[in-house]
Amino acid sequence: MMRKIAIILSYDGTNYHGWQMQANSVSIQGVLTSAASSLFNEEIKITGCGRTDSGVHAKMYVASFDTSSKIPLDRIAYGLNSMLPPDISVKCAFVVDDEFHPVHSCIEKEYTYYIYTDTVRDPFLENRALHYRYPFDLERVRAAAAHFVGTHDFSSVRSLGTPVKSTVRTVFKCDVTKENNIISVRISANGFLYNMARAIVGTLLDVASGKISPEDIPDILKSCDRSRAGATAPAHGLYMTNVVYPERFGLKQED
Amino acid sequence: MMRKIAIILSYDGTNYHGWQMQANSVSIQGVLTSAASSLFNEEIKITGCGRTDSGVHAKMYVASFDTSSKIPLDRIAYGLNSMLPPDISVKCAFVVDDEFHPVHSCIEKEYTYYIYTDTVRDPFLENRALHYRYPFDLERVRAAAAHFVGTHDFSSVRSLGTPVKSTVRTVFKCDVTKENNIISVRISANGFLYNMARAIVGTLLDVASGKISPEDIPDILKSCDRSRAGATAPAHGLYMTNVVYPERFGLKQED
Repeated sequence: MMRKIAIILSYDGTNYHGWQMQANSVSIQGVLTSAASSLFNEEIKITGCGRTDSGVHAKMYVASFDTSSKIPLDRIAYGLNSMLPPDISVKCAFVVDDEFHPVHSCIEKEYTYYIYTDTVRDPFLENRALHYRYPFDLERVRAAAAHFVGTHDFSSVRSLGTPVKSTVRTVFKCDVTKENNIISVRISANGFLYNMARAIVGTLLDVASGKISPEDIPDILKSCDRSRAGATAPAHGLYMTNVVYPERFGLKQED
Repeated sequence: MMRKIAIILSYDGTNYHGWQMQANSVSIQGVLTSAASSLFNEEIKITGCGRTDSGVHAKMYVASFDTSSKIPLDRIAYGLNSMLPPDISVKCAFVVDDEFHPVHSCIEKEYTYYIYTDTVRDPFLENRALHYRYPFDLERVRAAAAHFVGTHDFSSVRSLGTPVKSTVRTVFKCDVTKENNIISVRISANGFLYNMARAIVGTLLDVASGKISPEDIPDILKSCDRSRAGATAPAHGLYMTNVVYPERFGLKQED
């Protein structure tokens, strides 16, 4: 009997060419596919909840696959972890309804971008957070961030990738907080265009540096002109931090 | 004119065979010596505040050297960082009195050991904290930790290394705290025997697992018998976190 299994995983993306399997490069999906195929002793096809870019991390990522294996559910995370490298970790596994799909069933996703302010670099944040050497006016950046919340055409803060039907998305939250010298930009939405989170952060960095005013954001969004927003912020500060599904799927991360 | 320069640095020790320069292995001291010799365009001899082992980290480490270079003090950290790999960072530099010595002038040192409790490993704590999979009774471990405070012969919690005149040290603080799933063991003393911090932590882990009672610690210390204490905890959870000198040297880390 086939079961559909969903897993929650986390990974440090530094050593990977992103989520998606490609010829001649090491990807999270590729490494996970090998580990699962070995563990279940059958060919496993893994579907992920999104394509994270090279260097992007995930504190919560959801993937699913079908298997005919009878391995008890509570041994799946343990078994996969024993075959995975230390920078990928499976937290838990669930049996899900056959209609579950990591991308199509998803109703909300959250990315968090970490920036640290310091005159010198921090060895422990290398590849983990963006180093920002200049003064950072939190209130000014917060005022700008608030303008991204709502339903907008986000064409001015995305990169061209796979064609999409619509460039309209709803951002539920775009919060900027600071703890010690670490600034977190937390963005949740019903979906993200390609590079949207990083382009929003790049734009907020231009607000921090004074190049863009908080009040300019609504116009930048309306213009649908990519060149008016900030550059795409570097990959290594970005983390997928939450993926939400309708309750009926029973996918709930244990603390 | 020669100046004596003290620098405060931090480093991720994962990729190094410890602080001390040795033939055929990459050390913090070796990499720093090359960087400083290039920057100052003269042969620089660097003295460190202690020999951290392979894989041990430092959030604050103090080193000093003499130079005839006229590079302004406020350019030294910047200049060294531009020549150092990203896992070593110089935070600041000071001109110090000629009698200053990173080891002999030091009046207090602090190490912090990080342990995280989780059923599965955390990719972001790989090489940075010890993964502990079992229940951890904080109060029990705290009770044991308190027994290390004071002036004792610490022979039962050290490894044999370079001969020392005395195995008596004064531990000022041995605090165990928990934040989310991260346990910190913070130990400060007027000096540490070889592997003393790691052997204290290894003993506390035996207390956590029930192998040793908190009330056994005074006896274990009195016995001066290494075999009665716990194993030396792995290097990768250990960080040098503070080094204190008499105020007259003016070595104060900026926040």
